[in-house]
Amino acid sequence: MSIVLYDLCGEGDVRFSPYCWRTKMALAHKGLAFETRPTPFTAIPTIADGTQKTVPVIEDKGRIVRDSFDIAVYLEETYPDRPSLFGGPGGQGTARFVENWCRVGIQSLLTGLIVADVHSALQEVDDRYFRETREKRLGRALEEVQAGREDRLDAIRAALEPARATFQQQPFLGGQDALFSDFILFGTLQWARATSSFRILAEDDPVHDWLERCLDLYGGLGRSQPPRAA
Amino acid sequence: MSIVLYDLCGEGDVRFSPYCWRTKMALAHKGLAFETRPTPFTAIPTIADGTQKTVPVIEDKGRIVRDSFDIAVYLEETYPDRPSLFGGPGGQGTARFVENWCRVGIQSLLTGLIVADVHSALQEVDDRYFRETREKRLGRALEEVQAGREDRLDAIRAALEPARATFQQQPFLGGQDALFSDFILFGTLQWARATSSFRILAEDDPVHDWLERCLDLYGGLGRSQPPRAA
Repeated sequence: MSIVLYDLCGEGDVRFSPYCWRTKMALAHKGLAFETRPTPFTAIPTIADGTQKTVPVIEDKGRIVRDSFDIAVYLEETYPDRPSLFGGPGGQGTARFVENWCRVGIQSLLTGLIVADVHSALQEVDDRYFRETREKRLGRALEEVQAGREDRLDAIRAALEPARATFQQQPFLGGQDALFSDFILFGTLQWARATSSFRILAEDDPVHDWLERCLDLYGGLGRSQPPRAA
Repeated sequence: MSIVLYDLCGEGDVRFSPYCWRTKMALAHKGLAFETRPTPFTAIPTIADGTQKTVPVIEDKGRIVRDSFDIAVYLEETYPDRPSLFGGPGGQGTARFVENWCRVGIQSLLTGLIVADVHSALQEVDDRYFRETREKRLGRALEEVQAGREDRLDAIRAALEPARATFQQQPFLGGQDALFSDFILFGTLQWARATSSFRILAEDDPVHDWLERCLDLYGGLGRSQPPRAA
């Protein structure tokens, strides 16, 4: 029986969760069959054992595992003979750092550029939940948060410089091959690609080239989600 | 014969190079005997084979290796039976990212806080070389660069947040044990500790606790360099 992944889902079957994308790439990297169960935000309390608060959540042989990093660790330990997600214990340790850098340094800036677009990509059932929770967290209307984003494009491009410099030295954050560290940043940029037509990356940016390489992985899994049309 | 390390050296034998510290920690981690040759900036062209432009440079069994990251890779490949510096290929790949993050995100901010102090820590023979090259690079007098640094303390502390968040999850960037990724950030903070009495880290900062753990490693190697007195 294949692994079940509860996958956040917007209007028109858009799959946009950065964390679910990390898990999808991890499952594909391990060569594990999986089926996704499209889930709006407001249905999360009804999935799996009824105690879940966030996705991704996977069910594998009766076990329920949540949190994209914990799922990656679970897959690495449960399927050690499959391709490694971390490339050794040092890679796992340092992937935690990449996750924190991505959250603190990239995802927060990106939220300011696309949060109203994310809202527009949702199913109607999630409309009020998302607006209320995010506006409370951000302290302003989503449209106000996103306004003037052209002026903040330089800031996010500058924040990506540590990744850019790395891609000038090697093809992936993991080195010669993509590892979970890559899927962390990939998930975050795929979130923007799926929900917003606002272009974060210049075409000649080495980060853009790396993103294309990631989209090509595992038979083009990432391309199963088309970019948001303008 | 033990490995020779050409180690940048200031007035009163202060050892302050962030990159040489990365190499010293790497050599100690591998359990390799080494002796340092104290070297002022202006003597670098005279060391080893006379073609060197930066330190660290090591000489090991007739081989000359330069650049702290390349030295770490060399040591990992040459002494594979010793404790690993990267914890696998994934750790090596991701260490490149940590190096770039540290250079782009931390070292550049730190320069603005301590560069005049670094100048004050040098041997007289390096005085003019350092001032001229750094003032050309920074576009201002060293003292002007450093002025008002109290106002920029919040910025560097914020920049350290990805590391701080990681140390709230695990003791080292490498995971349960220190790896070369840790030595990268350690070297940079040791540079400040050795040359400047300006306190970058609050005592209750998890980054401060991690720095203390790093200073304790390998018989307290990092403490062989006392902090700069106020």
